[in-house]
Amino acid sequence: MSEQRKNRVTVDIYGQTYNIVGTESARHMRFVASTVDDQMRVIKRANPSLDSAKLAVLTACNAVNDYLILKNQVEMLESELKKLKDEVNG
Amino acid sequence: MSEQRKNRVTVDIYGQTYNIVGTESARHMRFVASTVDDQMRVIKRANPSLDSAKLAVLTACNAVNDYLILKNQVEMLESELKKLKDEVNG
Repeated sequence: MSEQRKNRVTVDIYGQTYNIVGTESARHMRFVASTVDDQMRVIKRANPSLDSAKLAVLTACNAVNDYLILKNQVEMLESELKKLKDEVNG
Repeated sequence: MSEQRKNRVTVDIYGQTYNIVGTESARHMRFVASTVDDQMRVIKRANPSLDSAKLAVLTACNAVNDYLILKNQVEMLESELKKLKDEVNG
């Protein structure tokens, strides 16, 4: 692990304040926070009875699911790229 | 949107029961749920004072962050692949 500068941002997600620390830019971390906030509000509209803990858990499930689908896509693209490079290089 | 068969699973995440519906396999949805449960417990160990709503929000933030990093990687791989295909096809 290399030593990386840490950034800190204070964000509001679904009415709660969070101090987030990360190696990404403050702008990126604010975008992540607003994405989570948006998704919680979308799920709330479809499921008005859910409390904020359940909304956040379902938002986390959606994000992990999207991540796993994309991870599969990365593996397919890397495999396709390797195959093409092997063809080009004989 | 095509008509896709929906699967339903009942999962336990951080002591709460959720009925999750999705087009993915039941096995995949259980894996997503156990990933979220694991990540909430990891964050809890590092931040024992956080309640379950905050743990879930931070888990969602981590998952969205990982997704965005991977999305960037997909875009780079697609661009590299397109460039190589253009070279191969003259």
